[in-house]
Amino acid sequence: MARILVVTPNPAVDTTYRVAEQRVGESHRVLEVAQRPGGKGINVSRGLAALGHESVNILPLGGATGDWIAAQLEELGLAASITRIAGATRTCVAVTDPVAHPTVFNEPGPTVAPREWEALLADVRLRLADAAMLVVSGSLPPGADASLITALVVAARDAGVLSLLDVSGESLLAAAAAGADVVKPNAEELLAATGTTGLDAAITAAQALGARLVVVSRGAHGLVARDGDTRYSTPAVPGIHGNPTGAGDAATAGLAAALVDGADVAEALRWAAALGAAAVLRPVAGEVDLAAFHRFLSTQTPTTE
Amino acid sequence: MARILVVTPNPAVDTTYRVAEQRVGESHRVLEVAQRPGGKGINVSRGLAALGHESVNILPLGGATGDWIAAQLEELGLAASITRIAGATRTCVAVTDPVAHPTVFNEPGPTVAPREWEALLADVRLRLADAAMLVVSGSLPPGADASLITALVVAARDAGVLSLLDVSGESLLAAAAAGADVVKPNAEELLAATGTTGLDAAITAAQALGARLVVVSRGAHGLVARDGDTRYSTPAVPGIHGNPTGAGDAATAGLAAALVDGADVAEALRWAAALGAAAVLRPVAGEVDLAAFHRFLSTQTPTTE
Repeated sequence: MARILVVTPNPAVDTTYRVAEQRVGESHRVLEVAQRPGGKGINVSRGLAALGHESVNILPLGGATGDWIAAQLEELGLAASITRIAGATRTCVAVTDPVAHPTVFNEPGPTVAPREWEALLADVRLRLADAAMLVVSGSLPPGADASLITALVVAARDAGVLSLLDVSGESLLAAAAAGADVVKPNAEELLAATGTTGLDAAITAAQALGARLVVVSRGAHGLVARDGDTRYSTPAVPGIHGNPTGAGDAATAGLAAALVDGADVAEALRWAAALGAAAVLRPVAGEVDLAAFHRFLSTQTPTTE
Repeated sequence: MARILVVTPNPAVDTTYRVAEQRVGESHRVLEVAQRPGGKGINVSRGLAALGHESVNILPLGGATGDWIAAQLEELGLAASITRIAGATRTCVAVTDPVAHPTVFNEPGPTVAPREWEALLADVRLRLADAAMLVVSGSLPPGADASLITALVVAARDAGVLSLLDVSGESLLAAAAAGADVVKPNAEELLAATGTTGLDAAITAAQALGARLVVVSRGAHGLVARDGDTRYSTPAVPGIHGNPTGAGDAATAGLAAALVDGADVAEALRWAAALGAAAVLRPVAGEVDLAAFHRFLSTQTPTTE
């Protein structure tokens, strides 16, 4: 089975600190530390693995934090093709206590040198020769510009491989303009990037730029999509409570897996909604409840307008 | 020149995040990340190096964070004798913004296995054969008990090497009871450990346990000490503003350097006060302003009662 390439441009060591009570300006004893390999693409890759799809994580990694992520991917059984970089991979810290909302500190990440990006792109081009799909997910590190996104989409198109991009801002516009097969922003990201006020106008704008299929995740309001002129929507699985972090990435994994398997857009949306909900049920981002996914699949009904 | 052994039982990667504004429950973009090898003993070792004293950092290190500290010590030109441990060395995060006080998150640190402590102790015993002094500085990681402190003090005494301990709580009581040559808590730590209300009574209690020289740092109120029945005090250098983090460790370094050089207690207190103030002038903990140190030395006058 051809593998899905998953590019994570700015991976992170996601660290969670549990404290008794968060207070600005105070010193806290951290009661518990949890760490996991983070970055949206890695979550996508874990969701794909849960669905039995092999993927290759393509990512720049550097420093001790990069080494740690490489070791963790191996432990999770996720294939990786690593571009070693001089800078150190970032850490993101979430502080939790029993009462307040989590406080999150996102490091910007290392500057990746142009020749390091070139090495990563060369690796992608090589692997596109027998890939099932190219997924690019997450933010760019500081100093990188959207031309990287353009180059990735063009490389996939040149190789005749489907591209799916879950990116935001300038990267989203670049992906659409380069003719990405699928873009999958959330509603807020799509509105912000296109500078429109209505979701319909925003999807039209993304398609006008060049994107074929636009899939928009709307959290508790489900997903909507437009493929050419055909509109689709699927409601969120009702009554799901838990940890929404990583749910959008699981939805991306569900979408990618279904499309690679030859599903139509309506079916792919169903998979996205079901795997997203299955991720909310797990306390740790990147994990999915597979039994729940299958249960949800059997109850989700997408709508074609 | 015989070297000073400096034990840091629970080193840390000290990380500082600069953000625009600290807010509990919000997501923050980290504008700048600074990292340095931390743990009180490492600061002491840097202070000693500034004064031209060679030291050997003795510390348990594990994981990628431990590797990073080892590399940084090498870069700083500080000798290290590392006991590799299975657990990962901790990180401590301080979040700063232009207005609020820094918010600090101190990870507890790894559990160090009994046989890992035994390896560290064996290393100390070996190196005590030609050491000028044994300094132990900072907290113990979770699961370690004060018997480690007792073993370190006893090892120094058996080798005929002066011991100086900057530790708190049970560790401070254990150090005194084991007959440490010098204990150097701050006033708060000494009062808390001895359960007394006055500083004089607290010093008496520490001496009654077995400590010979008790040196107490009192921040802006300078230092007091008692050696047998002789009391000493030295005021803080007046008019010093800056970063007090690490100033106590610089004072420990000044004290240790002076005592190793054969200075009397009054002179050693002068060095402690001057190097502590020289550290406040530097924005980064662990660094000292050496020119300021020499200036301060020429103006500080200790008092013997």
